[in-house]
Amino acid sequence: MSDHSHIAFVGTGVMGRSMAGHLLHAGHPLHVHTRSKERASELLEAGATWHDSPGSAAAASEVVISIVGFPADVESVYLGENGIVAYANAGATLIDMTTSSPALAVKISEQAAAKGVDALDAPVSGGDVGAREARLSIMVGGDQEIFEKTRPVFERMGKNIVYQGPAGSGQHTKMCNQIAIASGMLGVCEALAYAEKSGLNPETVLASIGSGAAGSWSLTNLAPRILKGDYSPGFFVKHFIKDMSIAIESAEAMQLQLPGLTLAKQLYDKLSANGGENDGTQALFRLYGGSDGSSLA
Amino acid sequence: MSDHSHIAFVGTGVMGRSMAGHLLHAGHPLHVHTRSKERASELLEAGATWHDSPGSAAAASEVVISIVGFPADVESVYLGENGIVAYANAGATLIDMTTSSPALAVKISEQAAAKGVDALDAPVSGGDVGAREARLSIMVGGDQEIFEKTRPVFERMGKNIVYQGPAGSGQHTKMCNQIAIASGMLGVCEALAYAEKSGLNPETVLASIGSGAAGSWSLTNLAPRILKGDYSPGFFVKHFIKDMSIAIESAEAMQLQLPGLTLAKQLYDKLSANGGENDGTQALFRLYGGSDGSSLA
Repeated sequence: MSDHSHIAFVGTGVMGRSMAGHLLHAGHPLHVHTRSKERASELLEAGATWHDSPGSAAAASEVVISIVGFPADVESVYLGENGIVAYANAGATLIDMTTSSPALAVKISEQAAAKGVDALDAPVSGGDVGAREARLSIMVGGDQEIFEKTRPVFERMGKNIVYQGPAGSGQHTKMCNQIAIASGMLGVCEALAYAEKSGLNPETVLASIGSGAAGSWSLTNLAPRILKGDYSPGFFVKHFIKDMSIAIESAEAMQLQLPGLTLAKQLYDKLSANGGENDGTQALFRLYGGSDGSSLA
Repeated sequence: MSDHSHIAFVGTGVMGRSMAGHLLHAGHPLHVHTRSKERASELLEAGATWHDSPGSAAAASEVVISIVGFPADVESVYLGENGIVAYANAGATLIDMTTSSPALAVKISEQAAAKGVDALDAPVSGGDVGAREARLSIMVGGDQEIFEKTRPVFERMGKNIVYQGPAGSGQHTKMCNQIAIASGMLGVCEALAYAEKSGLNPETVLASIGSGAAGSWSLTNLAPRILKGDYSPGFFVKHFIKDMSIAIESAEAMQLQLPGLTLAKQLYDKLSANGGENDGTQALFRLYGGSDGSSLA
């Protein structure tokens, strides 16, 4: 895999735009498709080639990378009429970096294999900042040799790149990440709600509890935003709900009960129904009697 | 407050023994009472004086420190017949470092004040290691001047010593700590359960998710123990259940709903009913289908 391999990039939202930019910058001829062409304008100005369909971009490339929205979008982009699998070159490698369904990753991998094409599932964590700074954590599922062959491409986008197992394993790993975050957010919001209700100064409480056994990334990074009333999205509520839905569906298929995740999903659904879908995940605090007066009751 | 002030220490369990040892080592004449005299033997051999009741130890001292088991023990030690408040010297400072009820802390403070005695509530986090290494986090409630006056005593036992507000505020802060931990533990256990059930290597999963947005003290410190099947207590399930009970009671008194905490308490109760009360808190993982075959169902 050289820096001159042609790469198709499908989906140039906040994450995809930065990730594709790193590849272009490294010298890869880049073939771009995304739902709204104007969201690709920066990349096109920087030298990327526009394609009117995912299949067209794939047909011009050795590696195809996608990061789109929902599993339905992934399915359409890969398995739809003008989709990637139908047009990919034999020997190409397809890499879906969307957080999506593990079962769908397996399905794509199987349909690709039937055409002599390899597929990896490689969702990320690290958010827009991680994407911009090429410091994403990337969790990879699929054939290990194919992963090793494409490692240089991953290294343009991330730092903590870990092979997790056969097709679907990248997605399963990302589900573990979201499951840990989901209940953790309950803990952060409930601790702060208790602090406020009991008349404590929550900032001073964080000074006591932030660095010990209660410490977490969320407590360090999101609790201060909550205390400032800053509910702007680092990670959207609506995307988190999508991820939790996938995790619950996947857990149910394995007959695994996850009551913490189930509760978190219920509360985020309620937050979303109250108009919070475009807030950041820390807005869960609102349900506990935050400033907008909504509540659990 | 000099290093020669007489200090009473009530309760010499795993935590209290280390904490009292630091005070003795610093030069304080130490007056000890605990339920089972043999648990004070090391301190007595090192020069501490034995007393047959909390009140007797208090009568000999300028500062009285306690760290016992349950709120009922705190109440008995302070407000019982041969208790601390009945025998404390006017002008003495009483410091309860048990994790106990905020309402009881207020009650003790009021009854002490009526006798010209000051009381602080100052629960800790950091566990047996923190106690041994004098690196506890100490959360202090009560009169701020009294806290400042006794600060040198706290500094013998802890590092992160934060004044949190009036009587009860130390206990309320500790409740925030336990609330954040409670739901966080659900997240850790559910992420690992999902990892195992989906056929991933949980160690490799931790390599992907441990340092990002899912990261927490529990994930870093307890998940590896879970994966080794090590359920030995850093912190006992039975003590965590006590703390969660106090937090729930206290939240109910404030009409605050904490569904994550309520769920965690239910699951830990179940774990305890299954014989896990003397395990470490990480044994919650057993409920998700751990090796002993118990389950949520």
